[in-house]
Amino acid sequence: MEKVSPRFTLGSLAQLLGGEAEGPIDKELERPVSAGDIDPLGVTFAENEKYLKLAESSEIGAILVGRDVRKSDRALVRVDSPRRAFAQLLSICRREQTLAPGVHPTAIIDPSAKVDPTAQIGPYVVVSAEATLGPGVRLFPFCFVGDRCVLHQGVTLYPHVVLYQDVTLGKNTVVHSGSVLGSEGFGYVWDGKKRSKIPQVGVVEVGEEAELGANITVDRATAGATRIGSGSKLDNLVQVAHNVSIGEHCVIAAQSGISGSTTLGDRVVMGGNVGTNDHVHIGNDVILGGRSSVDRDIEEPGAYFGTPARPLAEAKRSFVLTTKLPELLSRIRELERKVEELSAE
Amino acid sequence: MEKVSPRFTLGSLAQLLGGEAEGPIDKELERPVSAGDIDPLGVTFAENEKYLKLAESSEIGAILVGRDVRKSDRALVRVDSPRRAFAQLLSICRREQTLAPGVHPTAIIDPSAKVDPTAQIGPYVVVSAEATLGPGVRLFPFCFVGDRCVLHQGVTLYPHVVLYQDVTLGKNTVVHSGSVLGSEGFGYVWDGKKRSKIPQVGVVEVGEEAELGANITVDRATAGATRIGSGSKLDNLVQVAHNVSIGEHCVIAAQSGISGSTTLGDRVVMGGNVGTNDHVHIGNDVILGGRSSVDRDIEEPGAYFGTPARPLAEAKRSFVLTTKLPELLSRIRELERKVEELSAE
Amino acid sequence: MEKVSPRFTLGSLAQLLGGEAEGPIDKELERPVSAGDIDPLGVTFAENEKYLKLAESSEIGAILVGRDVRKSDRALVRVDSPRRAFAQLLSICRREQTLAPGVHPTAIIDPSAKVDPTAQIGPYVVVSAEATLGPGVRLFPFCFVGDRCVLHQGVTLYPHVVLYQDVTLGKNTVVHSGSVLGSEGFGYVWDGKKRSKIPQVGVVEVGEEAELGANITVDRATAGATRIGSGSKLDNLVQVAHNVSIGEHCVIAAQSGISGSTTLGDRVVMGGNVGTNDHVHIGNDVILGGRSSVDRDIEEPGAYFGTPARPLAEAKRSFVLTTKLPELLSRIRELERKVEELSAE
Repeated sequence: MEKVSPRFTLGSLAQLLGGEAEGPIDKELERPVSAGDIDPLGVTFAENEKYLKLAESSEIGAILVGRDVRKSDRALVRVDSPRRAFAQLLSICRREQTLAPGVHPTAIIDPSAKVDPTAQIGPYVVVSAEATLGPGVRLFPFCFVGDRCVLHQGVTLYPHVVLYQDVTLGKNTVVHSGSVLGSEGFGYVWDGKKRSKIPQVGVVEVGEEAELGANITVDRATAGATRIGSGSKLDNLVQVAHNVSIGEHCVIAAQSGISGSTTLGDRVVMGGNVGTNDHVHIGNDVILGGRSSVDRDIEEPGAYFGTPARPLAEAKRSFVLTTKLPELLSRIRELERKVEELSAE
Repeated sequence: MEKVSPRFTLGSLAQLLGGEAEGPIDKELERPVSAGDIDPLGVTFAENEKYLKLAESSEIGAILVGRDVRKSDRALVRVDSPRRAFAQLLSICRREQTLAPGVHPTAIIDPSAKVDPTAQIGPYVVVSAEATLGPGVRLFPFCFVGDRCVLHQGVTLYPHVVLYQDVTLGKNTVVHSGSVLGSEGFGYVWDGKKRSKIPQVGVVEVGEEAELGANITVDRATAGATRIGSGSKLDNLVQVAHNVSIGEHCVIAAQSGISGSTTLGDRVVMGGNVGTNDHVHIGNDVILGGRSSVDRDIEEPGAYFGTPARPLAEAKRSFVLTTKLPELLSRIRELERKVEELSAE
Repeated sequence: MEKVSPRFTLGSLAQLLGGEAEGPIDKELERPVSAGDIDPLGVTFAENEKYLKLAESSEIGAILVGRDVRKSDRALVRVDSPRRAFAQLLSICRREQTLAPGVHPTAIIDPSAKVDPTAQIGPYVVVSAEATLGPGVRLFPFCFVGDRCVLHQGVTLYPHVVLYQDVTLGKNTVVHSGSVLGSEGFGYVWDGKKRSKIPQVGVVEVGEEAELGANITVDRATAGATRIGSGSKLDNLVQVAHNVSIGEHCVIAAQSGISGSTTLGDRVVMGGNVGTNDHVHIGNDVILGGRSSVDRDIEEPGAYFGTPARPLAEAKRSFVLTTKLPELLSRIRELERKVEELSAE
């Protein structure tokens, strides 16, 4: 963990968060940590007695608690909302990976690319023909930007992002390391002897304020566009196939896969490792539990779960019963025995 | 989306596709799009009334239709086979990421590597000792080619591909961005205190005309070779473990995982996120539905599905019944009640 | 496959392994291979009659067998333990990807980074501000090491590894190509209109002698640390979410995903594509079969399986019964018919 001089004292932290120190005001503190972490320079928060006890059980620098909470043998900072104060502390402590201003001399930028003078381009970045980089765009080392890509104002690509040709990223969108956008869709024709590629001539369009995790893959469309709407957040290792359309403000957790031509409305939420069939539609405000498999259209908003995905309550009932199958079998056997007896009478 | 001058008029498009224009022959058109896309410069196709209606429902430049299809208020191009004409249009409109001829001055090529003079090697590529690059090989930026790798004629590695040592790729094989071939197999020995690595000294051999998607992983064999046969196509984020052998013309959809030493025959098809046990054999012409789990050998050609994977019809029946478990439970309860009554009589 | 002059003769191999040659002692041999591989220069091993027959069924250079095993028409080397002798042969034949000593002139190392003079740094590596590289650290091409990262003695990063800021790797830990450590955790707050990122200010800490496969993702903690314990081995394409803690000597097979704040004890084993809920605890010595889904705490050591994960024996019974559901339905129908009859009497 980083070794830097302490950033706070109990007193300065309390002042910063508009709170009240309870303990030695000179006590040195350095960073926010999780409840239960052993860290004498760490600051955590406790919204209730359970988390307060958890925090007290390990060596910890200080605990953010509500105004009326009981005393503790640990240093406390009393605030109106411990959760909000902790989020404030997180914001203060954020330290981004550094990236020098300007264009690094090792960056290779095609002469036909348009690069805003405020863009920051790190070492070993390649920007291809006719690409456009808007104001404040940040490209970390080893990013590859393909022909005709358009990166609007404030876009960030972390190290090792690949954009094939014709990828558009809206304002302030962020892509994490190792992700690949615009690769060829998985479409072939079988002629009885071999598979020939169906040319994939489409594009990828991502809206504004989207965030795409590490090592994800988004294929370009066969024709037209594969789309990810504004405000949508995709976690690590997600697969988005060709011609998929994801609406706005969706949240898709790690290792989920959206098959070709499937469309998602707005505010769709997927747990981890959800899968879908191709060409299905998932409507606005549908929530899918982790590992669900969507095999047909879901129009009605609400929570769904399971394989195949069904309304949550119904799915849970079946889910529990699959674990009770041996008992069901016993009951059937018992019935068979009794019916046999009755028939024999 | 790319901003280029229109490539076609309705008239020139009809001529190009051997069809008949119906509408303003000067109408400007630019690119193929999906049915339902809103794109006044877009061209789509409709094989039947349903897709024709869908295409008519949005602003679209022109629709490719059959010779005898009804009139429309949209511009039409009448052709023998709308699907074939559309594929032809896709081929015409394909625009590959540019790669300059020759070897970029920033590419680092070991003096012992053999590089055909027609190979194209982009910026920031590293080619290691004793590697061989055949005629027409294309290496996009940031590719790493390990010691003794052999890339036969026409191989393409898109940006950010990693080949560890001793990887062979057959003629015209394509590997997409972020994929890693030849990494160490996952083999350890536990001595009661810690795990020691079993040295992984094997190689990876990929046949001709294979295509490997983005961010896939293929481990080298413990000894011998991990193999992917000619003509096989692997989608994004697929895992191929050490000592696996995949036959020819297989198709493996995204996020599937093939465990160690498992063998696939020819023309095996896997839907998305299929998994297998290690050391199983899957015979020729086996088709596995999405998310199936193969826990034992499958020899008989045909369609399979489910967890564990079984013949499709059988699997579907069980699959449907898992969703009907609450109803089965009710029927058992009702039987119990009735048998209780009968017994009491 | 590599073309080098033969490394062994049957006689020299027998001598090397402390065994006894049976066959032409001048016979040339080159490499270890799997039983069943066709390779006249290959050496395999057979622990029992089944594998001996398999080895004899294909063209093979020589077979390592036990001292008392029957004669064969193939060349044999008789040793005390064929398995141990084969492992010894693997060790001898290991050929690592070459990496020149010293720092390659194209490596870009921040002046504030501390780099041990024995570290090997390949072409096109970027090491950021205040990073520390210990003795014998090896960074293959295209690695990115973020601000304040600490790589202890003997750490190896294969080509194309990304470490965001504040990642610590213990002694001799290995990370394979394409893996991303320290990316931002997937945490947002929804305000009814959009999602705002919860700042992720934590770190990643990996212990000693750990091995992390290709294209994995490990997010940094919201606060505190995401931890992977000493001796733990993660296979390719594994996802480790923010605030996860993995104990020592765990083994996690490919495509598994550990959700946020979940904790694993020591020596936990996961098969391929296992998933977990967030905030669950999995105790020491728990073994999870492939594709299991952990939805609640598991404290008791032992084998578990299924969705949801349950003790193995119990899970297997349910698992088998899900494939027998059509039969259960028939039995219920038959009971209903008989009870109907009995009631009518």
